[in-house]
Parts: sequence; structure tokens; C-alpha cells
Amino acid sequence: MKGIRLGIVGLGLIGGSLARALQGKRGAPEVWGSDRCKESVRLALDCGAISKGATEREIARCDVVVVCVPVRASVAVIERIGKRMRPGSVLTDAGSVKAEVVARGRAAVAEGVAFIGGHPIAGTENSGFPAADGTLYKGRTAIVTPCVGDDEAAVRTVEKIWEKAGARLLRMDPATHDHVFAYVSHLPHVVAYALVHAVGTLDTNVPLGYSAGGFRDFTRIASSNPAMWKDIVLQNRPEMLRALAHYRKNLALIEGLIRKEDEAGILAYFGRSKKIRDGI
Amino acid sequence: MKGIRLGIVGLGLIGGSLARALQGKRGAPEVWGSDRCKESVRLALDCGAISKGATEREIARCDVVVVCVPVRASVAVIERIGKRMRPGSVLTDAGSVKAEVVARGRAAVAEGVAFIGGHPIAGTENSGFPAADGTLYKGRTAIVTPCVGDDEAAVRTVEKIWEKAGARLLRMDPATHDHVFAYVSHLPHVVAYALVHAVGTLDTNVPLGYSAGGFRDFTRIASSNPAMWKDIVLQNRPEMLRALAHYRKNLALIEGLIRKEDEAGILAYFGRSKKIRDGI
Repeated sequence: MKGIRLGIVGLGLIGGSLARALQGKRGAPEVWGSDRCKESVRLALDCGAISKGATEREIARCDVVVVCVPVRASVAVIERIGKRMRPGSVLTDAGSVKAEVVARGRAAVAEGVAFIGGHPIAGTENSGFPAADGTLYKGRTAIVTPCVGDDEAAVRTVEKIWEKAGARLLRMDPATHDHVFAYVSHLPHVVAYALVHAVGTLDTNVPLGYSAGGFRDFTRIASSNPAMWKDIVLQNRPEMLRALAHYRKNLALIEGLIRKEDEAGILAYFGRSKKIRDGI
Repeated sequence: MKGIRLGIVGLGLIGGSLARALQGKRGAPEVWGSDRCKESVRLALDCGAISKGATEREIARCDVVVVCVPVRASVAVIERIGKRMRPGSVLTDAGSVKAEVVARGRAAVAEGVAFIGGHPIAGTENSGFPAADGTLYKGRTAIVTPCVGDDEAAVRTVEKIWEKAGARLLRMDPATHDHVFAYVSHLPHVVAYALVHAVGTLDTNVPLGYSAGGFRDFTRIASSNPAMWKDIVLQNRPEMLRALAHYRKNLALIEGLIRKEDEAGILAYFGRSKKIRDGI
């Protein structure tokens, strides 16, 4: 990566943490950053996470560009930057939903530019550059979602960035990614939001304070950023609706077993879930 | 509590931890224990958590008896022991569901014996005396569920046991208890089991390993003891079914918003949940 110039668009938790993770690393690329928020750029410059606060036009001249803005806004940014990039350069992103972004990114980039989707599996409930953390990706998985026919060198370039930031790598095609993450991430968030919403819309007052940590721990992800998760569930809407329908069926099944007082059925249902969960 | 003899029926995680919590405490009662499993009694005797392994008949002669067996089995034990206890003595339990147990316990006890429901809010995924831990109740809440007309001294006796074990106290009537816990504990468990079940019953293989801790953390409670939770949801069946219906309505609401791509609606829904969750 030495001698390469990396542009990061969006210096929030994801982009800011990437910049900080590369800071001072041997063989790390030179990092330029841009953000709508001037304060984030100033903070990133002040702490040395980026060597230059760049315009979008300047970012487009970098060898590799990582777009780290919210997923629904990312397509427009990718299209604007992608068409201005130079042949041989690589454009990637860090969004939580991949199929549409990858399809549109591949269609939008200039001749000779590669668009390769990326998704580092990391995050916290916090956001913005002040929440950025150089160890955020350490030991976490970064998923890279190449398509058939993508240039292997371009894929490796994207992988090397996340490797340098401390992540382990995994390749997955975009459609599989969105299917898997509908279940392991997006559905759990909707379920958690719905559970807390159910308690909050009761006529009776249900005090939540003394729930032995159970309710608090279980619903921690309902504290996630509503705007970000609104974007994610809409961006992954077809998979999301399929996952919700499948979950609803499984919920109706246990509700029916409880209604019928089917002891053996409930035991088998809970036991099956425990076995799957214990196997993670 | 000094000079008082306390009988614990069931030396598993809950009863065993109570015995260990009282062990060596200043002013703690003398503790007798009984368990269907002879090995548990032997282990409790060996480590000094109980001073005598007693029969159920002997336990019934104690001043205070705490029944710590699974909630669906507890009613029969409470009825058997309650009718044999001496006037002035107090019978209590530690079950997670209260209304029916309290009604039947009150009806079953001999003349002059008080039945007062109890529920220490503590537990782990483990069970049995080897999992017993003298610090399990430290700083946790023990709920005591007296009814109108109960003897205040008897209620205080039960409270003092949990206080001595390190718990903070809270009083709640049995029906309110079951309503509240349907939401803060029982529904989350069913939701977690259903979520894991949904993933486990997919035709496609959804690898769960690299879910960034999110899925693993969120579904931790789906590793809970299936037999114990089968008992709890059946014991609290009417509240459970009401809670499930209310949750289903709230889930359908967010599903509808996602289907309609109602950005403002989704944002408001997630935002409301986050506000409630952050307020815990």
C-alpha cells in the first residue's frame, strides 16, 4: 500500500476509524479525507488521521477511494466520484447492504475503474469522528463482495486496506451477503426495536429498571441510530420483508404451541433453538 | 434470623445459591436442605452450605421454608409441605411466575401458616448445585409478592432472607408481577428462541459465526434451559399470550412501514424505541 493514496469519503465512525487504524502503520497508504462536516475534517487533520482535507474532486484523483457514508446516501456519492476516477483506480464502500450499491457502483464507474463492494462488520452505538477508534476493526471481519469478472488485483487492493486496519477477510457475493445479513443483523435490530416499542405502547406502566439486565442486554441494539437503521432496512427491503415473513411464521408456531399447551412441542422448539445458538 | 431454622427445597442454582449466600453470614439462620438428587445434597453438605440434608417431612418442621424447584413442579411441593407446617411458620418460593402459585399456596397451607410469594431476579444459563454461587443475589432485586391481608411479620421474614443473601427488595402484587415479567423477561426469551428458530429453519445456509457479536449477544438468552422456559411460558400462559399478541401488532406495524417504504414512519418508530431503551 506504500506510495498509494487512499481517499476516505465520510469521516464518521466507520471512515474515521479506518483512517485512525491506518495512521502510523508500516506501509500504510497516504490518507486524504472528505466530509460534509468541516469539524470532522478539522478533527481528523488535527490528530493526524488524514494528511489532507480534500474536496470530492480531489478525492476522485486518489488511487483507492472508500466511501463511508450512510448506505442510502452512498449510491449518489459513488456515482459522482466513480465517473471521475482514473483508469486503474479502485472504488469501494463500507455499507451494510450490498446488492444494489454494487450493481449501481459497477455501472457508474469510469472505464478502467473497478468498483468492489465492502462491508467491515464493526460498529458501536456511537457515531461521528469523535467516536472513531483505531482498534474498531481489530479482529473483526471485513467482507468484500466481488462479482464474477472483477479484477482480482482490485479485489486484493480493497482486502489489503481492511487487513492493514486489523480485520480478517471474507469474500461473499452481494446477494448472499444481503440474505445473510438480513438474518444475522437487520432482522434482530427490527425485532429489538419492535420489542421495546411493544413495551412502550402498553396502556399499563411496565417498569423496566429491575429486569435483571435481561431486558436491557437483550434490547441493547434498540439503542442503535434510528436514521442509520431506517436506511439499512429500506436498502435491504426485499430480503428484509422475506426475513420478517419467515420470522413471523416461526413466531406464530411457538405462539400456537403455547396456546395449545403443547409441552413436548414447546420443549422441542426451545431445544432446537438452544442447540443452534450454542453452536455459534 | 439467628436461631431460626430455614429449609430450602431444591438445591439447584437458585436454592443452592441461597444456601451459599447465607453461609457464614452473621445472624444467618441455620439451613437445612433437601433435593431429589442425592448428589446435590451431598455437595451442599460437603461445602457447608447446609447443616443437614433433610427429608420433606423434616423440612416442613422448619420455621421458614423456601421452595426452589421449577415453577410448574413447585405447586405440588408447596401443597405437600404447606399442609404439614406448624402455626407461625412461613412458606415461600422463588418461582418466576406468581399469580397461580400464590393463590394455591395460600389455599394449601395449614392454619396459622403464611404463604408469601417470592422471586429473586437472578440466574445464569447454568443450573444445578455445581453452578450455585454465593454472590448470585448480590445487588440483584428480590421481589416479594404479598397479598392484601397477609401478615406483615411473615412478609418481613421472607424479605430478610433475601436481604441477608445480598438482594435489594421490591414488593409487587402477584398479578402485576406476572404482567410485568411477561414483557421484561418471558416475551424476550420467546422472541429470542423464535429468532434463532427462524434462522435454523431456513432452506439456505446462513452462517452465524461472523455476525460481529450482534446476533450472538442478542440471542444469548436463547441458550437458556428449554425445560425451565417451557414451564415459565406455560405457567404464565394468559399473560404470555396477551404479550405475544401485543408484540405481534407492533411487529406488523414496522413491517407495514417497511413495505410501504414510509421513511418518516420508520424513523419515528425506531426513534421512539431508542428513546424508551435509552431511558432504562
